[in-house]
Amino acid sequence: MRIALLNPNTTEHMTETMLSVARGVAPGDVELVALTAQRGPTAIESHVDEAYASAGVADLVLEHADLDGYVIACASDPGLFAARELVEAPVVGIGEAAYLYACTLGLTFSLITTLARDIPAARVRIATHGLGGRYASVRAAGVPVLETGAANVAGTAAVIEQGRLAVAEDGAEVLVLGCGGMADLPKIVSAELGVPVVDGVAAAVTLVTGLVRCGLRTSKRSAFAWPEPIAYRGMRAPSRLPLER
Amino acid sequence: MRIALLNPNTTEHMTETMLSVARGVAPGDVELVALTAQRGPTAIESHVDEAYASAGVADLVLEHADLDGYVIACASDPGLFAARELVEAPVVGIGEAAYLYACTLGLTFSLITTLARDIPAARVRIATHGLGGRYASVRAAGVPVLETGAANVAGTAAVIEQGRLAVAEDGAEVLVLGCGGMADLPKIVSAELGVPVVDGVAAAVTLVTGLVRCGLRTSKRSAFAWPEPIAYRGMRAPSRLPLER
Amino acid sequence: MRIALLNPNTTEHMTETMLSVARGVAPGDVELVALTAQRGPTAIESHVDEAYASAGVADLVLEHADLDGYVIACASDPGLFAARELVEAPVVGIGEAAYLYACTLGLTFSLITTLARDIPAARVRIATHGLGGRYASVRAAGVPVLETGAANVAGTAAVIEQGRLAVAEDGAEVLVLGCGGMADLPKIVSAELGVPVVDGVAAAVTLVTGLVRCGLRTSKRSAFAWPEPIAYRGMRAPSRLPLER
Amino acid sequence: MRIALLNPNTTEHMTETMLSVARGVAPGDVELVALTAQRGPTAIESHVDEAYASAGVADLVLEHADLDGYVIACASDPGLFAARELVEAPVVGIGEAAYLYACTLGLTFSLITTLARDIPAARVRIATHGLGGRYASVRAAGVPVLETGAANVAGTAAVIEQGRLAVAEDGAEVLVLGCGGMADLPKIVSAELGVPVVDGVAAAVTLVTGLVRCGLRTSKRSAFAWPEPIAYRGMRAPSRLPLER
Amino acid sequence: MRIALLNPNTTEHMTETMLSVARGVAPGDVELVALTAQRGPTAIESHVDEAYASAGVADLVLEHADLDGYVIACASDPGLFAARELVEAPVVGIGEAAYLYACTLGLTFSLITTLARDIPAARVRIATHGLGGRYASVRAAGVPVLETGAANVAGTAAVIEQGRLAVAEDGAEVLVLGCGGMADLPKIVSAELGVPVVDGVAAAVTLVTGLVRCGLRTSKRSAFAWPEPIAYRGMRAPSRLPLER
Amino acid sequence: MRIALLNPNTTEHMTETMLSVARGVAPGDVELVALTAQRGPTAIESHVDEAYASAGVADLVLEHADLDGYVIACASDPGLFAARELVEAPVVGIGEAAYLYACTLGLTFSLITTLARDIPAARVRIATHGLGGRYASVRAAGVPVLETGAANVAGTAAVIEQGRLAVAEDGAEVLVLGCGGMADLPKIVSAELGVPVVDGVAAAVTLVTGLVRCGLRTSKRSAFAWPEPIAYRGMRAPSRLPLER
Repeated sequence: MRIALLNPNTTEHMTETMLSVARGVAPGDVELVALTAQRGPTAIESHVDEAYASAGVADLVLEHADLDGYVIACASDPGLFAARELVEAPVVGIGEAAYLYACTLGLTFSLITTLARDIPAARVRIATHGLGGRYASVRAAGVPVLETGAANVAGTAAVIEQGRLAVAEDGAEVLVLGCGGMADLPKIVSAELGVPVVDGVAAAVTLVTGLVRCGLRTSKRSAFAWPEPIAYRGMRAPSRLPLER
Repeated sequence: MRIALLNPNTTEHMTETMLSVARGVAPGDVELVALTAQRGPTAIESHVDEAYASAGVADLVLEHADLDGYVIACASDPGLFAARELVEAPVVGIGEAAYLYACTLGLTFSLITTLARDIPAARVRIATHGLGGRYASVRAAGVPVLETGAANVAGTAAVIEQGRLAVAEDGAEVLVLGCGGMADLPKIVSAELGVPVVDGVAAAVTLVTGLVRCGLRTSKRSAFAWPEPIAYRGMRAPSRLPLER
Repeated sequence: MRIALLNPNTTEHMTETMLSVARGVAPGDVELVALTAQRGPTAIESHVDEAYASAGVADLVLEHADLDGYVIACASDPGLFAARELVEAPVVGIGEAAYLYACTLGLTFSLITTLARDIPAARVRIATHGLGGRYASVRAAGVPVLETGAANVAGTAAVIEQGRLAVAEDGAEVLVLGCGGMADLPKIVSAELGVPVVDGVAAAVTLVTGLVRCGLRTSKRSAFAWPEPIAYRGMRAPSRLPLER
Repeated sequence: MRIALLNPNTTEHMTETMLSVARGVAPGDVELVALTAQRGPTAIESHVDEAYASAGVADLVLEHADLDGYVIACASDPGLFAARELVEAPVVGIGEAAYLYACTLGLTFSLITTLARDIPAARVRIATHGLGGRYASVRAAGVPVLETGAANVAGTAAVIEQGRLAVAEDGAEVLVLGCGGMADLPKIVSAELGVPVVDGVAAAVTLVTGLVRCGLRTSKRSAFAWPEPIAYRGMRAPSRLPLER
Repeated sequence: MRIALLNPNTTEHMTETMLSVARGVAPGDVELVALTAQRGPTAIESHVDEAYASAGVADLVLEHADLDGYVIACASDPGLFAARELVEAPVVGIGEAAYLYACTLGLTFSLITTLARDIPAARVRIATHGLGGRYASVRAAGVPVLETGAANVAGTAAVIEQGRLAVAEDGAEVLVLGCGGMADLPKIVSAELGVPVVDGVAAAVTLVTGLVRCGLRTSKRSAFAWPEPIAYRGMRAPSRLPLER
Repeated sequence: MRIALLNPNTTEHMTETMLSVARGVAPGDVELVALTAQRGPTAIESHVDEAYASAGVADLVLEHADLDGYVIACASDPGLFAARELVEAPVVGIGEAAYLYACTLGLTFSLITTLARDIPAARVRIATHGLGGRYASVRAAGVPVLETGAANVAGTAAVIEQGRLAVAEDGAEVLVLGCGGMADLPKIVSAELGVPVVDGVAAAVTLVTGLVRCGLRTSKRSAFAWPEPIAYRGMRAPSRLPLER
């Protein structure tokens, strides 16, 4: 099966890092198709970045609409609902996948995100997935997206420190890493803190593979029905593809 | 004070209709600045449309960043959080404003939206505003965005019929109209059903005016802090403006 | 339009203070009618005070039932639901209005109330308005109702200190002041802390004005239907007025 | 022990009916002290009635502050929080007691209230007790307070019919009767429908007895601390009693 | 009436301690029947212990199915739902009873449990009873089940210390003791901390007595219907008893 | 990797059916180890059955504690939390897995369970997984556990009919089958109704495989820490195994 690893930001080396992690967990029959947004923010730190990235995600899915499954590889899951409308193959966000996996490993998890500005929005995202009652806390490491990852020793120490506080003070049993750029951190952080640490890239790639194996596809019944055939002004209408089906 | 009435879709006559309603409720010292998205969907019916429209909203706010208040005039409030990052003036969505107004007129309200596909997503939107416990039901009139409004007699009858069911079967005490194109319907529907009917355009224009009069501005503390100075690829970075402040 | 600014406690100078704030935000076409409860507590600190004050609010609304809108000017919103039954004009509490306004300025707000005893009850009140998921914390300044306000320098410092903790430790993006007597504090507190500070008096006056401009009236469908024609013993039945309609 | 059965409305024959039910369940060492509000509504159908009745409840408790436990015998629990402030003995409302008892007999209950206008407010009351997730539905029999009870054959049939619908359509496993005047109905309704039917008067009398036997008293820590020594205008300050303690 | 005090663990002296407390609150017409599980854990500290204890509870109820009421005397309420299926008499858990009693004494309570491992599970249990919105915190004294009780002075000090923190830092107005072995602690802890302290044994015995006095029985309508006549392998089918009814 | 497919009931042909489904979705490197409870109910229809089955699940896991992952193959997830304590390998219930998968395919799902008695308990189970806000309804097909499956044409028709109602009346976008015995139904039901239909067996097998590939293990931090070394009476203590680690 062919699974898209779709990076909503435009930083290709981040796609590469995530692809490397994804390859480490993907079974032999999975072909990973790495896609990087062609226009838009090089990192997604604000709702503004997210707005432009969501459009970029829709663009990418439209151009690669024949794959068997899709991973939206940004922890804020930009464009997730839009992508689900554009294809029938399953689509999973790395934020969403990490929360779902964490729920099977303990009764409560904490999310370690990048910047403090993301904390209230991250709570809204978790609640939108219906899991508002499952998290112990959301904490920020204070490390921008493009500086995350094992190569940044000080940044990694900050992630570990917030994880330690989440476990000790907030009662977290499981940690979720809140950025695709942290995909190479789970083993390091878990070894330090002695709790499971979930990276969304690995989680989403295996989760969407599982959905595909079960023959499950996105419901076209209501929320994620094919887009209506709306005319667009100043750009190609994205609904063309499903209409031709 | 100068208040933007920002239509996230690209259909100018819909901007005109909404402007007319807005003028009917705006106090004398309010200058309404009607803005219409320059690129993107002519109507917002799907999450895909919403993704592109959110980027369009961010574009418009960036270009008109010096106003005293902003109304995002689409009931799904596309780009609302992004807009709040781009300015410090208060920004209100017509969906949000309608829910808040409805909460002051009865203990439960029902939303009458356009197409059935929007029902689960509308519930998520209401819950995101924290009001998941206040609505009795979400019902769809089955009328597409561009066909809403008093000129469509059959469509209006469908709105009234769903409103009637919301009151009789779901226990709604107040109705909220779920599309900017329905802005000319409140009096017609209310006269038929005998309950208050809230249109978001009028609600948002008066609400944002109230926020301005109180000297209140969007918090820059966390969720709606100015965008980070992220580089963009293939397009102008939207964060330029606040950085120059 | 004529808007009642109804003080549920019997302290007239507190009515005056609030009226002064209200005048500062009311548009030119709004005539404010200040009303002070004639019997009952000089301040509302307990549920007992609230019980007597609720009856006083009903008395006042009955005597002034011909206005265009009503503001219940006590942060615990005493008698709010009763007042809504007695008139069809919109009625807004200053607690309620402040929470609703705060919701448009950030994702989470904190309430700074007067005495610690009010903390659990304030949480119940916010939850009753359906906004239990939107607040970061409720904190008490330890200042009794009649000692609040800018003239009390130490009390104001206590409000600022609790606000500072709400922002720093609880993640509040917006502060709500939990007493009508604090109506002259928003600018002082906001200047200190750099976040928007919402006073309910200004919020409620502008909010109810907005409802009136939209032609919206309290639903008589269910929760706030006119009172039943119940006989009263030892006092005039309050339902007389609506019965004469 | 001496337990107050406090009727918040001024209809003495309703006090008598409830006293008769209370006597049927009170253990031998319990002396029931029947109290009837001296001023105010003869029945509590609206929030206005509730406001005046709450003041009446506070009056009664102040005058009879030396009892061992208190039952507020109206299903909307008027003045419950105020009463808890005025004494340290446990105070239980018949609405509250019925919900709590129902929770031990099945996973979901339905409330059969008097008039349809009470439905949304009853939901708020149940949620205020924290049990918003435990009820299947709230239904109204359409019988006013003073016409409830076994003597009204048609009214009782209406209660049974709504109970039948609650069980058959809403999935209720237990029924709660939503008016003190229905205190003589449980056996009749239960025999018809085959599910447990909880009357709040019997529930509250036995519940408060249990609290007293356990030596438990109302917390004076925060929400129900003794009233502050607030001056009152035009009436005696209710806080006098606790101040003299 | 005959009430079972059913200890789900196999430690008889713990049954004796709890029986002593139960006798102190049971009215004269209540005969307490102390039952101790015959197989299984000597204390219930883990979900594994709880699984085996639940089967033991079902065994015991089957063998003593003719009593008038049942108390499951372990704070995690093991086998509560199973017991409710096996009899029609009311069944109350000491965890459940303590939460319900606490709800009548303040707006928020804190639970002081035994070991820290129980904290997230205790939150789930409280939420299952629908009271997730009523507790301020769950804290652990770090004292194993078999070491709880007044005889353990250091352990009691630890309970008091966590209770003090719950009141001072978490805002608890009422404390609930989270182990049947703590049944002799309420007076000691309450005297130290000045807030009501609820022990579940006393609460459950009086609560179930109240249910019996009201003639209330477990609903057989849905969740707690008699067990289906399922064949068992390697053991006697527990459903035999109700089938013979 | 070796994954346990653990049937909590004692009906071996049901294990076989589920194994067949599991084999259809398991990747080539997964060895499925089918385990059937040795003592206890032949089907799990009641809480009593569940209590005995939970002990049986703990027995089985103790005896097979060296596998790489565990699937608890009963839709009520009996013994799930106990199993998580006994091993560090990931453990997933088929109920839980189905809900999580369903959440990625639409905004709301409905559960089609076996008997009506399970409806309220199923709601509690879904809420315990934190997903109380994601389901549209729980409906019962009225088919006992041992009669489910494609071989029962009438039973399958009943499942389809309830699914149809869930989609048409309750707004479900995805269906979840609420019994391991329905594992061969998804394609049949999905073909009829045009929405994704999730069977928990396939979901759990692929989900646990994904967790293993990511190197994730159950948190031993709190809720699922190794069992305490509690003595057992009349049976072997289950905690022996982890103590020897």
